[in-house]
Amino acid sequence: MLRELQLIEKLTQRTLLPSQTVRCGVGDDAAVLRLGPFELLLASDMLVDGTHFDLSRTDPIRVGRKALSVNLSDIAAMAGEPLAAVVSLALPREVPDALVERLYDGLAERARHYRCPIVGGDTVGTDGPLAVSVAVLGKVEPGGAVLRSGARPGDRLLVTGQLGGSLAGKHLDFAPRLAEARYLKEHAELHALIDLSDGLAPDAYRLAAASGVRVVLLAEAIPVAESLRGQPDALERALTDGEDFELLAAVSPRGLPALLADWPFDAQLTEVGYVEVGRGVELQWPDGRRRSVTPTGYAHLR
Amino acid sequence: MLRELQLIEKLTQRTLLPSQTVRCGVGDDAAVLRLGPFELLLASDMLVDGTHFDLSRTDPIRVGRKALSVNLSDIAAMAGEPLAAVVSLALPREVPDALVERLYDGLAERARHYRCPIVGGDTVGTDGPLAVSVAVLGKVEPGGAVLRSGARPGDRLLVTGQLGGSLAGKHLDFAPRLAEARYLKEHAELHALIDLSDGLAPDAYRLAAASGVRVVLLAEAIPVAESLRGQPDALERALTDGEDFELLAAVSPRGLPALLADWPFDAQLTEVGYVEVGRGVELQWPDGRRRSVTPTGYAHLR
Repeated sequence: MLRELQLIEKLTQRTLLPSQTVRCGVGDDAAVLRLGPFELLLASDMLVDGTHFDLSRTDPIRVGRKALSVNLSDIAAMAGEPLAAVVSLALPREVPDALVERLYDGLAERARHYRCPIVGGDTVGTDGPLAVSVAVLGKVEPGGAVLRSGARPGDRLLVTGQLGGSLAGKHLDFAPRLAEARYLKEHAELHALIDLSDGLAPDAYRLAAASGVRVVLLAEAIPVAESLRGQPDALERALTDGEDFELLAAVSPRGLPALLADWPFDAQLTEVGYVEVGRGVELQWPDGRRRSVTPTGYAHLR
Repeated sequence: MLRELQLIEKLTQRTLLPSQTVRCGVGDDAAVLRLGPFELLLASDMLVDGTHFDLSRTDPIRVGRKALSVNLSDIAAMAGEPLAAVVSLALPREVPDALVERLYDGLAERARHYRCPIVGGDTVGTDGPLAVSVAVLGKVEPGGAVLRSGARPGDRLLVTGQLGGSLAGKHLDFAPRLAEARYLKEHAELHALIDLSDGLAPDAYRLAAASGVRVVLLAEAIPVAESLRGQPDALERALTDGEDFELLAAVSPRGLPALLADWPFDAQLTEVGYVEVGRGVELQWPDGRRRSVTPTGYAHLR
């Protein structure tokens, strides 16, 4: 889908008008809109049966959870707060009510937990697979949206949680890092933020490109998921597996020891690298050797 | 889909939390959210190939137009102004770039014309039909959202444009009545507003139910589409054909002659009935005879 994504980005750029309202359109985790003394965040994600989940062997409550959580993760990645969500469902005609109810149980659970009421949406019939499309509106104080474009040479890179292996299960039940993002904004000089939807390597590449800097990842520091430890490809999978939905943050080194020492969340916070002048992403080993990493993370690691 | 819609409405009600933010959640054309001195509107609609359009014989530019316009019609139905939209696309793997570009041409055309920039979204692969899900954010001055629940006995009912036969083509190219809605709000005592997505009869029924009143439609006054005139079922189709996307408004009779005389838009404005104490929808003939109309519009007319 990378080619399609680039096409869509190009096409969407074309529809953007000079506007007082739009501070940041296509190209970040959520759009940032100015409205009086507020900044609003708007994001949407669609999940399709057979692509993002498999209803033939997945409890629909987990599909509901994921559908809202991926959107909440976009709001977290801007250091924002969710306000409300709308849900559009495409339902195959033979889907039983019980499945739809169970899917909504998952949506409702996440809506309550993260204080993001579901305020409307649409339901349509389809001859294809079930699809659920969610859009989330969020807010942030004026100028408070943290973009992926603010990283500066000298910044340190932090990652929440552990990386890799998410598709074995975590991708359906993950916790969007809303509170963690707000804490980072309040307790660090937070310059850039992105959520890891496609994998540490490709998303670090996005952050580097948007910020006009080079990202250096320390191979031995990357928090590999417990399920992957001891496997020969553990590091590669931590770099390239998608759907971790953890945060990658660029912060000033000032106050970093205290930030790491006082971190109050269950999900660990790990320093995984730094930002320097340059472009792209490089992986560095303890002996100083480096390899460049491509946007897909694969090529130079194999 | 009526049964599914009722299920979804019930399930969505269940996810609503007591909230300072939500003035009006599920059950109107758009949700109304309070944010400081603003009221925000949030709506979403999904269109699926084979259900809402047929790509095998429709120029994709018209699909793009419709995808944004149905959402803009929801904002019009609250008498609001659009701020921005996000677009999620489910693309079958064999879809050529040219088709996607053409679809975006339709989105972009409507985005420019109605000043609603497309600020982001998502693109996913699907094994099913192409689907396009749009969410629109709008705004209105505080307390200014016009709900479907405000109609009062004595109000007159107005309809924009002409009704029926939309599926022969108009449903893909219709003009959302944003300016007409704002004009009604500024030049009439506008009590209730709804857009005609399912047909005059079912949508009048919704307005009646939400307002706790009876709607009386004058059979000879209903503006039947030119393409239907002379056909034996013209009136029934004007009442029950879906996807007109015209507005049905309940206004105070005060100032109505001037409103009708000064109406500045190409789309005609027609007085089609009135509101009285009671419930449901009745159709009245010039000789005073009445028949009740069911929510689907069909039963008592045949």
